[in-house]
Amino acid sequence: MTYNNKKVSIAVVRRLPRYYRYLGELLKNDITRISSKELSERMGVTASQIRQDLNCFGGFGQQGYGYNVEILYKEIGNILGLYKGYKTIIIGAGHLGHALANHSSFEKRGFRFIGMFDIDKNKVGKKVRDITIMDMEELDDFVKKNKPDIAILAIPKESVQQVAQKLVDLGIKGLWNFSYTDLKLSEDVAIENVHLSDSLMTLSYKITHGINQKM
Amino acid sequence: MTYNNKKVSIAVVRRLPRYYRYLGELLKNDITRISSKELSERMGVTASQIRQDLNCFGGFGQQGYGYNVEILYKEIGNILGLYKGYKTIIIGAGHLGHALANHSSFEKRGFRFIGMFDIDKNKVGKKVRDITIMDMEELDDFVKKNKPDIAILAIPKESVQQVAQKLVDLGIKGLWNFSYTDLKLSEDVAIENVHLSDSLMTLSYKITHGINQKM
Repeated sequence: MTYNNKKVSIAVVRRLPRYYRYLGELLKNDITRISSKELSERMGVTASQIRQDLNCFGGFGQQGYGYNVEILYKEIGNILGLYKGYKTIIIGAGHLGHALANHSSFEKRGFRFIGMFDIDKNKVGKKVRDITIMDMEELDDFVKKNKPDIAILAIPKESVQQVAQKLVDLGIKGLWNFSYTDLKLSEDVAIENVHLSDSLMTLSYKITHGINQKM
Repeated sequence: MTYNNKKVSIAVVRRLPRYYRYLGELLKNDITRISSKELSERMGVTASQIRQDLNCFGGFGQQGYGYNVEILYKEIGNILGLYKGYKTIIIGAGHLGHALANHSSFEKRGFRFIGMFDIDKNKVGKKVRDITIMDMEELDDFVKKNKPDIAILAIPKESVQQVAQKLVDLGIKGLWNFSYTDLKLSEDVAIENVHLSDSLMTLSYKITHGINQKM
């Protein structure tokens, strides 16, 4: 992928949210500027990695001054697209759907939660935050009318492929997929998978082989 | 890290659960052997990556025959430590804790769910599956007596550091951390973080910059 015509690897992209988080904590603690060395000590990465990563997006640091925390925080937020108010719907109103609907990162990161759907008639009509759970049969009309950007898939893997394809056909831009399968879809959608089982098995490996601390 | 004295990178380890999942699906469909080429087409990775990855653990394939699906499935399960029956507790009985307690991967992957804790007295005493939610005050005694291997941390980040350190002091081997912070702990524990916010922000980046399909 490219940013201002520079190539940016997905590995760098995946590190950006962590920078954003650390910078947000610095801001909360009224720290207004920081050197790459200090930031590297807090984050447990090398200062040169920080400089390299941020250089992908045009730098931001000044020799002898370091980084202006607020500017860098906002700039990374912009790069991540956090202030665009992406409209988000959740498919599946089980425990996971509820957990995600109530996840604090939503509003804090500028996402707007606008709809939730389930096939279970017992759930339809109930409220999650200020959103009334709708029947899956209403999904088409709702998406056509409200044009959500992101759909969160928190449904069993047996039905997810079909639902995902429908959402792509309806113009959804991004899928946050919690179903334990790799979606096979046409190319015009962004996908981010959270495969919880894979993560748990990785932990199991680490315990089994004595790989301590996060790697 | 090493396996039978061979170096194995964390990137390879993180790919093992996906092999395990695909092999499990093949088994379900009564496919008993598969070439690295066929497997690579299904998984969307190169055949040489598959051979390289599996060679880290001693190979398994036979020239002209391919892989015996059942043997490979079981072997990867062993490498991942899935049949050890790791005892698991969940800290935090909110929606996320419930979602994880009910996650199908638990039993299927050989983990045993033995306890759940919360500070909220309204939750204590209620049942999740066949487990009664306990008060956090009971955590010490329970861990000393039952010696769980894994603790799942599904609590707000404000309290997680202290709880995690206590668990490590009590001898827990692995932490599956859903709290949105990087834990700072002594070295003798394995940690696997699921930072949902980071994943959502990565999706936001992909949408914003038109990076389609999973990378």
